[in-house]
Amino acid sequence: MKNLIVLISICIFLAGCTNQQGETTEIPQVEKPAWAIVVHGGAGVMNPANFTDEKEKAYKDKLAEALTAGGKILENNGSAMDAVESAIRILEDSPLFNAGKGAVFNAEGVNELDASFMDGLTLNAGAVANVTKIKNPISAARKVMENSPHVMLIKEGAEQFAAEQNLEIVDTEYFYTDDRWNSLQKAKEREKQRLKDETKKSGTVGCVALDKNGNIAAGTSTGGMTNKKYGRVGDSPIIGAGTYADNNSCGVSATGHGEFFIRNVVAYDIAARIKYKGETAEVAANDVINNKLKEIGGSGGVIVLDKYGNIAMPFNTTGMFRGYKYPGKAPVVSIFQKQ
Amino acid sequence: MKNLIVLISICIFLAGCTNQQGETTEIPQVEKPAWAIVVHGGAGVMNPANFTDEKEKAYKDKLAEALTAGGKILENNGSAMDAVESAIRILEDSPLFNAGKGAVFNAEGVNELDASFMDGLTLNAGAVANVTKIKNPISAARKVMENSPHVMLIKEGAEQFAAEQNLEIVDTEYFYTDDRWNSLQKAKEREKQRLKDETKKSGTVGCVALDKNGNIAAGTSTGGMTNKKYGRVGDSPIIGAGTYADNNSCGVSATGHGEFFIRNVVAYDIAARIKYKGETAEVAANDVINNKLKEIGGSGGVIVLDKYGNIAMPFNTTGMFRGYKYPGKAPVVSIFQKQ
Repeated sequence: MKNLIVLISICIFLAGCTNQQGETTEIPQVEKPAWAIVVHGGAGVMNPANFTDEKEKAYKDKLAEALTAGGKILENNGSAMDAVESAIRILEDSPLFNAGKGAVFNAEGVNELDASFMDGLTLNAGAVANVTKIKNPISAARKVMENSPHVMLIKEGAEQFAAEQNLEIVDTEYFYTDDRWNSLQKAKEREKQRLKDETKKSGTVGCVALDKNGNIAAGTSTGGMTNKKYGRVGDSPIIGAGTYADNNSCGVSATGHGEFFIRNVVAYDIAARIKYKGETAEVAANDVINNKLKEIGGSGGVIVLDKYGNIAMPFNTTGMFRGYKYPGKAPVVSIFQKQ
Repeated sequence: MKNLIVLISICIFLAGCTNQQGETTEIPQVEKPAWAIVVHGGAGVMNPANFTDEKEKAYKDKLAEALTAGGKILENNGSAMDAVESAIRILEDSPLFNAGKGAVFNAEGVNELDASFMDGLTLNAGAVANVTKIKNPISAARKVMENSPHVMLIKEGAEQFAAEQNLEIVDTEYFYTDDRWNSLQKAKEREKQRLKDETKKSGTVGCVALDKNGNIAAGTSTGGMTNKKYGRVGDSPIIGAGTYADNNSCGVSATGHGEFFIRNVVAYDIAARIKYKGETAEVAANDVINNKLKEIGGSGGVIVLDKYGNIAMPFNTTGMFRGYKYPGKAPVVSIFQKQ
């Protein structure tokens, strides 16, 4: 009889697992915080030997500044959307990252910027691609979401819309930095010599936030790939590839070799695994980045924030500028692996 | 002891179900055919009263022609990719559909075309958006996939690439038809009067094929939305939204109000449900189109072809130009509901 009871218990346990596996159950990893925010500043080949203490500090300080600004909004009952936009604008305005000021140059020597923005409450989304005159592309993406019937606007059409929305329009020279210009010249030189160029993939920025109302928002902004072909669009402005947010699962922002992220619909794939397979954010993000993408040579990483406030930040490169902040705690920022 | 054995059996059965629910199991609906092909020519408001017999016949004949051409390639051991490209080129060249010749006009009176293409074997993909001079955008999307390191090229960059690839470049006037021009004038008139315009969403074309080697390919081509804002990109050129193909699950091509399809990552969501929840193509496609999208006002439909040759063609509008063909059978084509 005792054996019988034990076996019945096992049966009930297994039946429970069936439901958890096949349905929408997630396992909280931490006690749910009132809010949370996570940012990235791009993944890529990063050798600690190439970072002076000053350079490392500059990157970490800027990530912390973005997290603190977003965190302040969330602490004061602001929305996840406001926090994401505010944090990304700080990273766009910094020449350190490949977004906004300091974006990389395409093969024709022009800064072509992409950005996307998504509201996890309504599943509304907006994106701009290949724009060259909008100071803060993340704000343009949000305006497309809020004030146009469309999700994606590109090039002059997007710029015309941004101007109508009173966003700041700048001369394309605003985005210029010597560093990025020199990277383009090096990339062209390597192309001539048919050498593999590992320097051209890092610097995209992104942010995901969860606010006190349980709303999740996500955004991504980039200058794309140094020496990219004229008119190329990567994953950053593609909803489902570079950005996704859904209050019922998670928010995601991606960075890396965009073509692989589009083909594998990376951001939505992570949300779908959480929703449909009951995987945790960590398991889903790790499997996509360190197995699925790594096996096919797709380098990069993601930041994920689920509805419980759990954070995952996997990457399959040697480094990713990244950080997160919870209420009442200092921002935690890192660059290289195992920090 | 007998009780014990029964209970152990129940436990094993339940554990088995867990695996089937959470993993990649699909239930074949038909005996697997040697090959299969399915096409659509757009979903929208379609009233049989507005279709003369001649008009209905013209649409059905053209869908059958595309299916027959693709089917011939598949019968002769050709690839799913060749079948998809060939079928879509026929629909692009016909002024009946909103793709290639006969595409709709944007708000500025220009035909801006989008297309995408995906190979389910390699998960390679290509797309072009907002092109105005490429005669067959589906072929340009395939060339981006095969001969560029990128997935998505837009506007002049895409046109420059297509010309380098020796694709046929035409004067933008080639795409002109009186019908579509008149639709734009009507749309503008309705806009002025702030009337809801239901006429602007139909006509995108798409195709999915499964070849004798078990490879799936999918493609979609469109002129977008009549009177759309300059620079707007819909779901058709977005991998994961308008098009997806994976030999391990299914191929999908979508048509409808693109913004809703992007926000819900429709094509990949159907593949993810088959892969992660073990849903059949029919259950997955129906739920996405007739529940998820319908509830939020997202009108349109999809064609889905899974790795077993099962076909689903759900739509939540009054009609969708659609059809399929199996080996040794005549093409089956329909337009309205319940035919």
